[in-house]
Amino acid sequence: MDLQGDPRALLRARSPEGVPQGPADVDPDTKPGYLGGKAEGEATLEARAERLSQLQELLYANGVAGTVDAGGHGRSVLLVVQAMDTAGKGGIMRHVVGAMDPQGVEDAAFKSPTEEERRHHFLWRLRPHVPQDGFVGVWDRSHYEDVLIHRVRGLTPLPEIERRYAEIRDFEQELADRGTRVLKVMLHLSKDEQQDRLAERLDRPDKHWKYNPSDVDERAYWDEYMEAYRIAIAETDTEHAPWFIIPANRKWYSRIAVQELLIAALEDLDLDWPPADFDVAAEKRRLAAS
Amino acid sequence: MDLQGDPRALLRARSPEGVPQGPADVDPDTKPGYLGGKAEGEATLEARAERLSQLQELLYANGVAGTVDAGGHGRSVLLVVQAMDTAGKGGIMRHVVGAMDPQGVEDAAFKSPTEEERRHHFLWRLRPHVPQDGFVGVWDRSHYEDVLIHRVRGLTPLPEIERRYAEIRDFEQELADRGTRVLKVMLHLSKDEQQDRLAERLDRPDKHWKYNPSDVDERAYWDEYMEAYRIAIAETDTEHAPWFIIPANRKWYSRIAVQELLIAALEDLDLDWPPADFDVAAEKRRLAAS
Repeated sequence: MDLQGDPRALLRARSPEGVPQGPADVDPDTKPGYLGGKAEGEATLEARAERLSQLQELLYANGVAGTVDAGGHGRSVLLVVQAMDTAGKGGIMRHVVGAMDPQGVEDAAFKSPTEEERRHHFLWRLRPHVPQDGFVGVWDRSHYEDVLIHRVRGLTPLPEIERRYAEIRDFEQELADRGTRVLKVMLHLSKDEQQDRLAERLDRPDKHWKYNPSDVDERAYWDEYMEAYRIAIAETDTEHAPWFIIPANRKWYSRIAVQELLIAALEDLDLDWPPADFDVAAEKRRLAAS
Repeated sequence: MDLQGDPRALLRARSPEGVPQGPADVDPDTKPGYLGGKAEGEATLEARAERLSQLQELLYANGVAGTVDAGGHGRSVLLVVQAMDTAGKGGIMRHVVGAMDPQGVEDAAFKSPTEEERRHHFLWRLRPHVPQDGFVGVWDRSHYEDVLIHRVRGLTPLPEIERRYAEIRDFEQELADRGTRVLKVMLHLSKDEQQDRLAERLDRPDKHWKYNPSDVDERAYWDEYMEAYRIAIAETDTEHAPWFIIPANRKWYSRIAVQELLIAALEDLDLDWPPADFDVAAEKRRLAAS
């Protein structure tokens, strides 16, 4: 069973009338466009992995061959993944991103910045990880931390936070202008579901390493985080770098949803296998004689 | 069906008596230790992917927790993959490496060096890609290019090539001293099988992008390449950074073989889940109240 409907319409953080949507507008228990249950969902994820993998190979092939679009640029895709802890970023990396060929995927995880990174503009550490032509870039957290936790915990003064939204828009415009399709997802789980998932980490010794006492501290700021997401999304949702809010109380659903968004972004590039830049018949003769 | 016997013994580039082995000593059509055929082999690969994935998560967990070995170092694994063109490096990356969690894998592909890289010592470009604690590093080609194609095509004078073997031994000793398990594999296919695979690339328009006319040029140096591999392996096969020669005329077999070598290297670390560095009971109370 496949997802019913265009995932970009189903999950976009903007109503059909153009009104920005925030996490409060999306129920994390829902599964937009998917009629089946968990077992079917897991089968769907596996079945569609092949399609995603083929499309990514096509993108990679075009990168190798150096084909360009009408504007003279190569093509690439950047998936930005933001979420509260335990929302399932790791599972997206493993089960969705992991189904693509690692040769053509550039993944980067942005944790607390280092001392050196702190002494630079907040976008500095991102730039080396912008995907090259032919690649799918995947960012596990991103520049959005600089307007999410920084806003909630007051790590940066508000006027500077406000400036950052514009800088982010410019940065993402620059990526789009250079041929990168940017999609940004917020995995949206409920506060209760997070409590259950943290409890499971505490119950299982093989999960203790994933538990961090500061995760409980952050729960006290849940509403402030949701508000910071709402503002960040409203400020930076654009046609060339859209935001999607993915209900994430069901891990299997959020994986299907992100997988379909990637498939849609890659299909949208409408790529063909690059033509040979050599004489095929002559090469066949040379090879046979070799 | 599993591989029969220790893959490190079956595939090591050194006889039980300690005599160095080269590609001429290994028949690329064989499948050491595996009794089944292709369909069984593909099922084995899939079944064992789970084990590899679990072990890699255990390594990653220890990296996050910062556990150390008796020497005070973290643990990591580095897989170096060398091969003639079409031998199946891409398939190893996709089907063996791709089954691990991309969060804990650092892969790097070393193509023709850039101008900047050429102006450095040949090991310079490798160092930033040495896996950090808790990671599996995977190198698609490596510093061995600097003693393989460089030797065959005379890109570097012989006395300098000779020096490089010692520098490579020192470099790999340094990695081992710091807690990295290094394993080096040569995917070994026959010259005839390469011809068939290149012919297939020419026959299929969706494979043209993988074809490079220079691949045929290099076939004229096949014997010289095999000799360069023999020397490089004999010069740099050590207990802490062993070489394995993997028969690769059957792609499915070479994937099982590399998968089992990775599993063996990870099992050898004998890791446990890291203990909690917080008070579990107290955290459960804090979480319940949050």
